[in-house]
Amino acid sequence: MKNAHSLQPFWENVEKALRLQHYFQRMPMHSLSVSGYTIHLGALAEALPTLWLQGQWSAIAVVCDENTYMHCWPLLQPLLPAHLALHLIVIPAGEAHKNVHTCVRIWEDMLRAGLERSALVINLGGGVLGDMGGFCAATFKRGLDFVQIPTTLLAQVDASIGGKLGFDFGGVKNSIGVFRHPIAVYIDPAFLHTLPERELRSGFAEVIKHALIADAAQWEALRQAPLESAVHNEEVILRSLRVKQAIVEADPYEKGLRKALNFGHTIGHALEAWALDGPLPLLHGEAIAAGMMAEAFLSWQLSGLPEADLEGIVQFIRRIYPLPTLPETSFEQLIALMRHDKKNTGGHISFALLPAIGQVQVDSFADEAAIREALCWYNTVL
Amino acid sequence: MKNAHSLQPFWENVEKALRLQHYFQRMPMHSLSVSGYTIHLGALAEALPTLWLQGQWSAIAVVCDENTYMHCWPLLQPLLPAHLALHLIVIPAGEAHKNVHTCVRIWEDMLRAGLERSALVINLGGGVLGDMGGFCAATFKRGLDFVQIPTTLLAQVDASIGGKLGFDFGGVKNSIGVFRHPIAVYIDPAFLHTLPERELRSGFAEVIKHALIADAAQWEALRQAPLESAVHNEEVILRSLRVKQAIVEADPYEKGLRKALNFGHTIGHALEAWALDGPLPLLHGEAIAAGMMAEAFLSWQLSGLPEADLEGIVQFIRRIYPLPTLPETSFEQLIALMRHDKKNTGGHISFALLPAIGQVQVDSFADEAAIREALCWYNTVL
Repeated sequence: MKNAHSLQPFWENVEKALRLQHYFQRMPMHSLSVSGYTIHLGALAEALPTLWLQGQWSAIAVVCDENTYMHCWPLLQPLLPAHLALHLIVIPAGEAHKNVHTCVRIWEDMLRAGLERSALVINLGGGVLGDMGGFCAATFKRGLDFVQIPTTLLAQVDASIGGKLGFDFGGVKNSIGVFRHPIAVYIDPAFLHTLPERELRSGFAEVIKHALIADAAQWEALRQAPLESAVHNEEVILRSLRVKQAIVEADPYEKGLRKALNFGHTIGHALEAWALDGPLPLLHGEAIAAGMMAEAFLSWQLSGLPEADLEGIVQFIRRIYPLPTLPETSFEQLIALMRHDKKNTGGHISFALLPAIGQVQVDSFADEAAIREALCWYNTVL
Repeated sequence: MKNAHSLQPFWENVEKALRLQHYFQRMPMHSLSVSGYTIHLGALAEALPTLWLQGQWSAIAVVCDENTYMHCWPLLQPLLPAHLALHLIVIPAGEAHKNVHTCVRIWEDMLRAGLERSALVINLGGGVLGDMGGFCAATFKRGLDFVQIPTTLLAQVDASIGGKLGFDFGGVKNSIGVFRHPIAVYIDPAFLHTLPERELRSGFAEVIKHALIADAAQWEALRQAPLESAVHNEEVILRSLRVKQAIVEADPYEKGLRKALNFGHTIGHALEAWALDGPLPLLHGEAIAAGMMAEAFLSWQLSGLPEADLEGIVQFIRRIYPLPTLPETSFEQLIALMRHDKKNTGGHISFALLPAIGQVQVDSFADEAAIREALCWYNTVL
């Protein structure tokens, strides 16, 4: 990626800073401006009050899932203005419910609540909830204002930027959706303490990805820090957000550069869809971690990634993630799933590969034989 | 409406021109530029070839309904480039199928056809088909290019401009949708010959509305021309399009002025939804015609429309449309349906009313008693 250097400024000594950070200490509020809206990073109680100065809404609907209703809603509720009608929409949790049926439930609840176009929707939850709640808000009466409050690490560093909304359809992830920006995003790392460790690790995969494609210094720092301090470190989140911000701003509608974010995802998405029907569904980040391993192999084979870096990636990912063995009988189905990827054109399977750590090459094409080899190799290094 | 005068230029002597027009004679191609795309008015065979110079698509999917597949597809098929993969998606016809289930069918067909993001969708049909085909194109893989070829008078003068897409949900018309523009619209009045007369009359209601809200001269001309010549007159279509174009351009996201287009629609939409479950469903234009009568009464009561103009509207509409009597028992339900209108804020029911022919006043509020009186009055003048 040509602009890789411009993505690595501002915080030269990650290692030192990481050593100075303590488990979940607060830093001052940070604001990132992205495509006309603001991402607020810091305590929700400090950031949210400014929202009520931004607009006049006739009512508020909060969309949460069973988990965030239990663990996160109690933190949000006291911060909402008492004078506005409040509607709570609770949906089942999990990727398996990211489908048109859940959207229909949300729309039904919005209709039943009598939401007008002047209502505000607040999506409180992980990426699945934010994608669906955002899609329903963006399509109800052709579009209500909405705010994202991502409560998982994955959603905080990934889904919170980019305006991608939607749901899975016909076995293909996110195959129906729209691009639309929230009016604001509030990232409070305090919510991360409500997460099971497996979820935290899953989200960390996108932090790893952002480092690998555009921030070699953060990659080095991550490798050397204990995992527990890294996942709760607000500076790590901020730095990861800045990578995504720079890429999305340069390519809001995924016409080119944004494909850089696809590293690990072409194979990862296929693994996730494949595992969804099996006995051991993978979390998104787990699938992406496995996908990054296989695509790092392709990077070594096709794009000149040094072997030492391939080994570094393998070691790091194996240390963090439980990874599934892929039966050879699954390869056909996996490749068929990759063909459905939205970024494909003309029947080829397109990858974002790493010529080096901190750099990425979009529109790298691999044929079926090379993909098959990468999947075989992946099984051998587990 | 303040800009009413600027909407009435270019063709001063409508009467004379109407006399000179013959049944379906062709005029030279006209192009209107709207919000970044072009509406081509004229023979499809003449206009469509320029589309293939505008972009490179990997495949074409044509969405039609059972009727347009029979009557319109044979006219389009020879004009499509032979080298592109072609997929035909045929859905059931009619407003009763404008729902999420039909969208799911379209998405399934798009997925089965393996459409990539670089595919082009062509929607061949009336407003219902264009709204749903457009919505599915705008949301499949977060958005494919699409072209609208409206085949009904209603879709040609109304749905072709404005970028409103979507479907009915929970008994509320167009309650789910997005704003998104096609890359081009092709209006060929030749398709109108494929329509039953009832459909043609229905579409004519929007021509009447455009004249009433912004073009007093066209209103006078319409009143004096035989209906058969008016509905097949390309100049009438063009003039009607220019009204909508001027309003939509001034207010693309329905924040204010665009509500002017709502004349007849607050009550009309409620009538349409109410009749949908009854033994005699109304066509959209028939419902709007009845709605315009009732809202003309409100205009006389609340906005100063002269009584002579109210009578002129009643006479003209009664001459063209079969209109249903509204049982008093339906009034509650009708008013509840009006409350669901997307343009409402703060619980009031908002109308676009006529202070005079060719002028419109948005955000005119009527209370329930006034609406009830208008519905009673409507029954008496049938």
